[in-house]
Amino acid sequence: MNTIIYLDNNATTMVAPEVLEAMLPYFSQRYGNPSSMHDFGGDVEHDVENARHSVAQMLGADYDYEIVFTSGATESDNMAILGTLQYYRDKKHIVTTKVEHPAVLNLCRQLEREGYSVTYVPVDREGNLDMEFLFDSVTNDTAIVSVMYANNETGVIFPVEEIGAFCKKRGIPFHVDAVQAIGKIPVDVNNIQCDLLAISGHKFHAPKGIGVLYVRRGTRLRPILYGGHQEKARRPGTHNVPGIIGIGKAAELVMQHLANKDEVERIKYLRNKLEEGLLNQFPNAHLNGNKNKRVDNTTNIGFEFIEGEAILLYLNEKGIAASSGSACSSGSLEPSHVLRAMGVPFTSAHGSIRFSLSRYTTEEEIDYTLKVMPEVVNQLLEISPYWDSKNKKGKPIGELAR
Amino acid sequence: MNTIIYLDNNATTMVAPEVLEAMLPYFSQRYGNPSSMHDFGGDVEHDVENARHSVAQMLGADYDYEIVFTSGATESDNMAILGTLQYYRDKKHIVTTKVEHPAVLNLCRQLEREGYSVTYVPVDREGNLDMEFLFDSVTNDTAIVSVMYANNETGVIFPVEEIGAFCKKRGIPFHVDAVQAIGKIPVDVNNIQCDLLAISGHKFHAPKGIGVLYVRRGTRLRPILYGGHQEKARRPGTHNVPGIIGIGKAAELVMQHLANKDEVERIKYLRNKLEEGLLNQFPNAHLNGNKNKRVDNTTNIGFEFIEGEAILLYLNEKGIAASSGSACSSGSLEPSHVLRAMGVPFTSAHGSIRFSLSRYTTEEEIDYTLKVMPEVVNQLLEISPYWDSKNKKGKPIGELAR
Repeated sequence: MNTIIYLDNNATTMVAPEVLEAMLPYFSQRYGNPSSMHDFGGDVEHDVENARHSVAQMLGADYDYEIVFTSGATESDNMAILGTLQYYRDKKHIVTTKVEHPAVLNLCRQLEREGYSVTYVPVDREGNLDMEFLFDSVTNDTAIVSVMYANNETGVIFPVEEIGAFCKKRGIPFHVDAVQAIGKIPVDVNNIQCDLLAISGHKFHAPKGIGVLYVRRGTRLRPILYGGHQEKARRPGTHNVPGIIGIGKAAELVMQHLANKDEVERIKYLRNKLEEGLLNQFPNAHLNGNKNKRVDNTTNIGFEFIEGEAILLYLNEKGIAASSGSACSSGSLEPSHVLRAMGVPFTSAHGSIRFSLSRYTTEEEIDYTLKVMPEVVNQLLEISPYWDSKNKKGKPIGELAR
Repeated sequence: MNTIIYLDNNATTMVAPEVLEAMLPYFSQRYGNPSSMHDFGGDVEHDVENARHSVAQMLGADYDYEIVFTSGATESDNMAILGTLQYYRDKKHIVTTKVEHPAVLNLCRQLEREGYSVTYVPVDREGNLDMEFLFDSVTNDTAIVSVMYANNETGVIFPVEEIGAFCKKRGIPFHVDAVQAIGKIPVDVNNIQCDLLAISGHKFHAPKGIGVLYVRRGTRLRPILYGGHQEKARRPGTHNVPGIIGIGKAAELVMQHLANKDEVERIKYLRNKLEEGLLNQFPNAHLNGNKNKRVDNTTNIGFEFIEGEAILLYLNEKGIAASSGSACSSGSLEPSHVLRAMGVPFTSAHGSIRFSLSRYTTEEEIDYTLKVMPEVVNQLLEISPYWDSKNKKGKPIGELAR
């Protein structure tokens, strides 16, 4: 196999050919500035509005103007939370979860340094949110509740509709980071009853550098950037036209995809085939996350006694791209904050691998992955200080503790 | 002529064919996330760093890591000013000019509402900055000086090197909005001695949605967005890889272009041909801005007694895209803040048109524009309430005043 087997679609996705085709004219032909007075810009503005409509449709939004284009979900999440706090300046409390993406978590940590108090709702061993804890943590000082729809590492889906109904009753703004849900399950802002919802283009086959913040009509939000009058002065800066056209087309493709039950089932079948194949092959492998309440493309498996990074490097040599649960980008050897919050044991959390599929994943790719994994895992077990090769079992941690 | 004659390059530019070609593989082939552990992402990271190097070279930066990729100049300007204020929290004064882009001006107005004091340095009738005023306005409470390199409406160049030397001596952070200078004149951060400098890709034939903030080594700056560890935690969010590759290639092309004296002279010649042709044809046309200290691609001409918007609409019908000086996007009929700051008289400011050329502008396009302008202007004079057609002269304003 010469090409890559890409099983890291929760990190980023291929731009769909149809999306790229739709974008192409907007670089060097239809390159006008949509804010310009001439038709060369005005025509482009019209196309931007069509793309906005497609995104609104995908999210079940009532009005196209509830869609605000941003540079990505990190900006959308920051805009949702900071923009709300800027409006409700007397409220100093935020409710979120322990397993959010860094775009929410690191922002909240910064806000704590600035005097805000933040409640991080815990999850159980399967990654399910402690709903009682969440409901109990909301006070009259709570400015916003921010909860992800599906977890990026485990794929576990949170009951955002239930949280939305609660927040609506309490009159508290509710923000949903739907980055890992979009394209995988139907996302409907009116079912969720959220005020704000963030998505990123590059997680559903649109390009990198474009995102959306859904802002429900009437939601109080201050901008976080100031400048021109674009996006009704909610998000200034010349429109990223090719990116907007791309995310509009990708939204159309998402709607088509989710309407195609066979395709949706096919991805689930492939994920399950991979997951069951691995769990059956390796007695020391464990599933991380609630098996029954997950997006269909993700599996996170902990291989006891070996290092996730080492597995990834071996897989990389075999042409397979996957991801570890651990915070490799920070250079830390700590297991991921998500698995730690779930209480996954040390020996398993360190060896956790996330495989995330897309609608472009083929059965051949899954079969190949299942074929090479035994070689990878057994090689690593041989050199693991936590593994007793002779007796084919793990060594007690105590023997290794300093 | 079927194609557009695009003389609005200060609003946005065509993506150069070489830039688009360089970007193309990064949508659907080399689409890995540069933060990923596998080679499929790592290879892309390598290409991102090469692009960063090209941008650093274009700006004369000492270190590649002084280049921070953003979503555009609006974000870069906001990041420079807000990030500096967040660091120097005890300082509550900002120095800028009356003729900045809204990305600086509207941010400063917002900061005034939040308790900051802002000095807006005035310009003279030719758009030159009042340097004495600027120097005198700086106090020990000044957190940042933010001045544009070249004005977007008139093309007038400000003496940023002089301001840079002054700020360095005073130990005050200096930010330069170089959006309209880049690609038109050599921009060198060490000549300017600035701490921060913002550029936008789409003003020099890279795509929309990508920008840069140059941050000199050692400059104290807080992030304005929180999230992942990208860009050394200064600007989180998955890299806009195609945009970054594009701005890197566009930077290479800028360096080639500016090294080609003939090409630089050609644009200046075409601008001058258009400008002189118009000023000679119309005795009631006046140049806005310092004729001798401007970028070479821009001319801003005030046509007395007629409306700029009307000129643009007629030009639009003839297939020519240009821009008025006025804030059309806000729906206001007030002349632009730049021309007002210059004290351009009402009858002229209202009829001001900006023509901005690029390296793709041809002499045929300029000749055609010169040919159609008399028809446009004379038609509008005929219906102007400010124009006495019989005597071929303007009516006194008093006759029209309420």
